[in-house]
Amino acid sequence: MPAETPLLFALDLTGTFVFALNGALTAVHAERLDLVGVIALGMFTGLGGGTIRDILLNALPPATFLDWRYLALAAGGGLIAFLLSRRLEKLGMPINVLDAVGLSVFAVLGADKALDMGFGVVQAMIVGTITAVGGGTIRDVMIRRIPTVLRSELYAIPALIGAGCAAIANGLGFHGTLAALGAATACFAIRMIGVRFDLNAPRPPGTADVGETPD
Amino acid sequence: MPAETPLLFALDLTGTFVFALNGALTAVHAERLDLVGVIALGMFTGLGGGTIRDILLNALPPATFLDWRYLALAAGGGLIAFLLSRRLEKLGMPINVLDAVGLSVFAVLGADKALDMGFGVVQAMIVGTITAVGGGTIRDVMIRRIPTVLRSELYAIPALIGAGCAAIANGLGFHGTLAALGAATACFAIRMIGVRFDLNAPRPPGTADVGETPD
Amino acid sequence: MPAETPLLFALDLTGTFVFALNGALTAVHAERLDLVGVIALGMFTGLGGGTIRDILLNALPPATFLDWRYLALAAGGGLIAFLLSRRLEKLGMPINVLDAVGLSVFAVLGADKALDMGFGVVQAMIVGTITAVGGGTIRDVMIRRIPTVLRSELYAIPALIGAGCAAIANGLGFHGTLAALGAATACFAIRMIGVRFDLNAPRPPGTADVGETPD
Repeated sequence: MPAETPLLFALDLTGTFVFALNGALTAVHAERLDLVGVIALGMFTGLGGGTIRDILLNALPPATFLDWRYLALAAGGGLIAFLLSRRLEKLGMPINVLDAVGLSVFAVLGADKALDMGFGVVQAMIVGTITAVGGGTIRDVMIRRIPTVLRSELYAIPALIGAGCAAIANGLGFHGTLAALGAATACFAIRMIGVRFDLNAPRPPGTADVGETPD
Repeated sequence: MPAETPLLFALDLTGTFVFALNGALTAVHAERLDLVGVIALGMFTGLGGGTIRDILLNALPPATFLDWRYLALAAGGGLIAFLLSRRLEKLGMPINVLDAVGLSVFAVLGADKALDMGFGVVQAMIVGTITAVGGGTIRDVMIRRIPTVLRSELYAIPALIGAGCAAIANGLGFHGTLAALGAATACFAIRMIGVRFDLNAPRPPGTADVGETPD
Repeated sequence: MPAETPLLFALDLTGTFVFALNGALTAVHAERLDLVGVIALGMFTGLGGGTIRDILLNALPPATFLDWRYLALAAGGGLIAFLLSRRLEKLGMPINVLDAVGLSVFAVLGADKALDMGFGVVQAMIVGTITAVGGGTIRDVMIRRIPTVLRSELYAIPALIGAGCAAIANGLGFHGTLAALGAATACFAIRMIGVRFDLNAPRPPGTADVGETPD
């Protein structure tokens, strides 16, 4: 179990399911994929970040691969997206909220796992961020999109801040559920502010700020 | 040696060669690649699935990387595709048959390796399928195609069934060459039926079934 | 420390910085990326090759991930590219030279690491080449370009030769800084000759040699 307490474990499973659902929905809208493709992309999105985390931390086999509950929730998220894609489309905002929950949980639990294994603060922040954004990045590469994290909205930055808060709390001696929930809340709040006000990270000097190009 | 008997080992080497040949041919037709690119894509296709398998099973360094015969056959398959691409083009159907052989062998041997290392049935099925389709997926990402496995034909499903048969046989106490050959035959038969009758996995409800879009 | 002597370690850090700078500059020109995207692509380019190397050699966690100096130089290279992209554009040739330095250093140090860990000559050559070209390949996949190494210029071949020279020197009993510098110089010289005279690896027979298609 990658998370120490039942509540954190439940949040980790929730993040896996929500990421799989959201990743599979993105795939359904972007490309003509079949049942296998939609479920596969759901699983990549839900499990990819944790897999890269465990490669970097030398914690193989990946925790998400060993525990059937992660596998089942990721596949289930993909299947639901396949069956109900048109209905779920209408729920745009709730999906964004759930995705932000997954982002926050994965960033903080990824950083906590690195700290528990004895890695430093910098490594914990990087691993937390990669856990949070890795799955969506794999999905985007598979469906030939420039990964969202590379070019739009505040997506990696809240994850980095959430992972950093977890590392600082840990350094100050605050462990466990409450510290993790606090750090995750910070990430979640910043992400939702970014979504609400359409904030973006700065672009290179001299780049014309034209409208977002469609894929 | 990842396979237990000389026959299974020979089949594993055959699958590596055929996948490399087929992957490199796809690359030659899709893009203007040079000698290095064609051989590299042949090696990715032939060795990629087994590499991901060994990362997930924590069996690093990858078996395909340690044994020079896998490396040589994968590079040789790419070289032959480079030199003879125009002649091999005329052999469309035999190439499909050989690719189905590789798919079947990799699915079953991947699942068997997971079972031998003590992983569960679900993990064995997933690892077998990833071993079978992973190399081609890496190749497709490199040449900017939506991975075939995500969107057309029965490709992942026969691999999943073959890996499942291997896991069931193992659970019933049937080990070794004969059980593996039986499971591989099941995968091969379903794949060839899919090719012959142009079967596809179902698409999301409400998606218009227009003709295959060209890349 | 992946390199045995201070000079080789300094060269390894230099290669990381130069690759990150160059990778991030390519990203700035190719796509509209934000600050996070440019730094992330710099880090992928600078650290990706060494990460794949350490997965294949079963030397996890990756050396580049454990040592904050690699992480800082890779992030710093990306940040400088973000801030100064327009000025650095005018320095085309020096960037090519620095990139060739990174290619040479990574190829030779990658091969040396494999040999030090007891791998064979073939494995050392493959790992050295992957270390040298892996980061740029990940970057190209992320920004949806056919990886440069697959289709143009002499890029993988000098790396393969440099890694081969390192393996031969090691087999003849020459270890340490001098042998590594000699092998890296061979790689560097071949790469720069390729850049100067616009040499390419051969293409498949029958492929019309039309001008390079723009991305």
